[in-house]
Amino acid sequence: MTTPPLFKRIALLGIGLIGSSVARIARERADIAGEIVANARTQATLDRVMELGFADRVELDPARAVAGADCVMLCAPVGAYEALAQTIAPYLDPGCIITDVGSTKQSVIRDVTPHVPAGVHFVPAHPLAGTEYSGPDAGFTTLFQGRWTLLTPLPGTDPGAVEKISELWRRCGSMVEAMEPAHHDRVLAIVSHLPHLIAFTICGTAEGLEEESRAQVLKFAASGFRDFTRIAASDPVMWRDIFLNNREALLEMLQRFTEDAQAMARAVRWGDPAYIEHRIQQGRAIRRSLIELKQA
Amino acid sequence: MTTPPLFKRIALLGIGLIGSSVARIARERADIAGEIVANARTQATLDRVMELGFADRVELDPARAVAGADCVMLCAPVGAYEALAQTIAPYLDPGCIITDVGSTKQSVIRDVTPHVPAGVHFVPAHPLAGTEYSGPDAGFTTLFQGRWTLLTPLPGTDPGAVEKISELWRRCGSMVEAMEPAHHDRVLAIVSHLPHLIAFTICGTAEGLEEESRAQVLKFAASGFRDFTRIAASDPVMWRDIFLNNREALLEMLQRFTEDAQAMARAVRWGDPAYIEHRIQQGRAIRRSLIELKQA
Repeated sequence: MTTPPLFKRIALLGIGLIGSSVARIARERADIAGEIVANARTQATLDRVMELGFADRVELDPARAVAGADCVMLCAPVGAYEALAQTIAPYLDPGCIITDVGSTKQSVIRDVTPHVPAGVHFVPAHPLAGTEYSGPDAGFTTLFQGRWTLLTPLPGTDPGAVEKISELWRRCGSMVEAMEPAHHDRVLAIVSHLPHLIAFTICGTAEGLEEESRAQVLKFAASGFRDFTRIAASDPVMWRDIFLNNREALLEMLQRFTEDAQAMARAVRWGDPAYIEHRIQQGRAIRRSLIELKQA
Repeated sequence: MTTPPLFKRIALLGIGLIGSSVARIARERADIAGEIVANARTQATLDRVMELGFADRVELDPARAVAGADCVMLCAPVGAYEALAQTIAPYLDPGCIITDVGSTKQSVIRDVTPHVPAGVHFVPAHPLAGTEYSGPDAGFTTLFQGRWTLLTPLPGTDPGAVEKISELWRRCGSMVEAMEPAHHDRVLAIVSHLPHLIAFTICGTAEGLEEESRAQVLKFAASGFRDFTRIAASDPVMWRDIFLNNREALLEMLQRFTEDAQAMARAVRWGDPAYIEHRIQQGRAIRRSLIELKQA
């Protein structure tokens, strides 16, 4: 009756919000991995992982973490992927699947693919899930429930490897969809990367105000500003790497947004109520569609 | 033992989210007004108000609504205030207090003050409360609980009138603070008006994408974008009027934000990880302060 695990041993390179959520789920249900190995950059993180008890083994050396694993999941900030891929390449078992959870897919493919040895499968993936918290304490088993995981498999990748990663995410509670890497990066630029860039920026703008106004920003934040600060609390290194690794799509979306914001500013300056109202109505259309799709 | 009502009769000119919440509270507790009169631009709204049952009387003519009232509260979009003030001026009883709930205070003072008859008191006010819903159905009695109401009284205003409006808002559950009108407009520009302008704009930017991307924006909106759409669902006419009536402060804050966003874009384009990380850290400082102040 028991479903056998998808993998004998999963190695999680990076054990923050996403990695530790996968580990917690794999620990709770027996059908994902027979053994869970966690790797992090610092022994302090690994000590904490052992205290939290969701890994069978911790390894400070990525090469030791991946040895003997049939699934290696990159869960570090995307800027660390190239060095990680280079480091682990000689230690990967034939037939092993490398996958990842990064929010940019073209850069991940660019950085990882050249290091993937013959006989090892690489299946880029991105679970669209997160909170503003980070680190191994932040993970939880329901993080991926009802959320999408986007796979951007390369042409010629073994379909069996793609299916195993799809099934891993389904067992984590996620819905799975395949997408072109370039299209993924463009969609994520507008639904995630630009909103985060804007939220970080407006918080920085407020932080730069003179002391008295800054104090009152904090006091009266509930008036709309607060909604922006939640997503601005996310991990700085992870987001720095995302911005740098989805540069073109992010800059294009920011450019479109800036043009739209400037057009709104011009209508405010010169007093064009019809334009302002029309633009607000357009923005609301998206919200209504979300409500109709039950995504709001 | 029963506290007498602050006012014999309150006339609410505009009966949307804010006006109908005040009416519901005044209806529930007997110590705000002996009689509640509601005015709106359309008979359909007034019919709905009578169905909802939180007003003693409805009047389509603002002049008839204010006759005999000792408190008149302007609860319409701020762009309608000047015409309303002009219309009602001849019908105001001596000793009556005019107050308002508008999100811009310098414009309200500019538009209303010239029409206030001798012997009538004008106390500008702004409850910092709202949801993305509008209309007489949207109000509820706990809307102002634990929220701030900012009063921007003019020099020379009768202190008794200011105190009565303060007490009205305290009885509505609000905390009350006085502020200079110009300072109010500047603080609100950054905590409320700019976040709304940005949220409307990014939703419009997404709406303007080609059809396939737009569909995927909706599908994957949970990745950050969704947080922006909630505040973008707010009432278009109300927000149009706020933008046009807080022009200078809003444009200044948008200019600061745009400079900061462009600096971030430049760092992304030219690959300056230290700058990006520093700006993200700065933005997070605001969030940490909010958490410390228990406002997050």
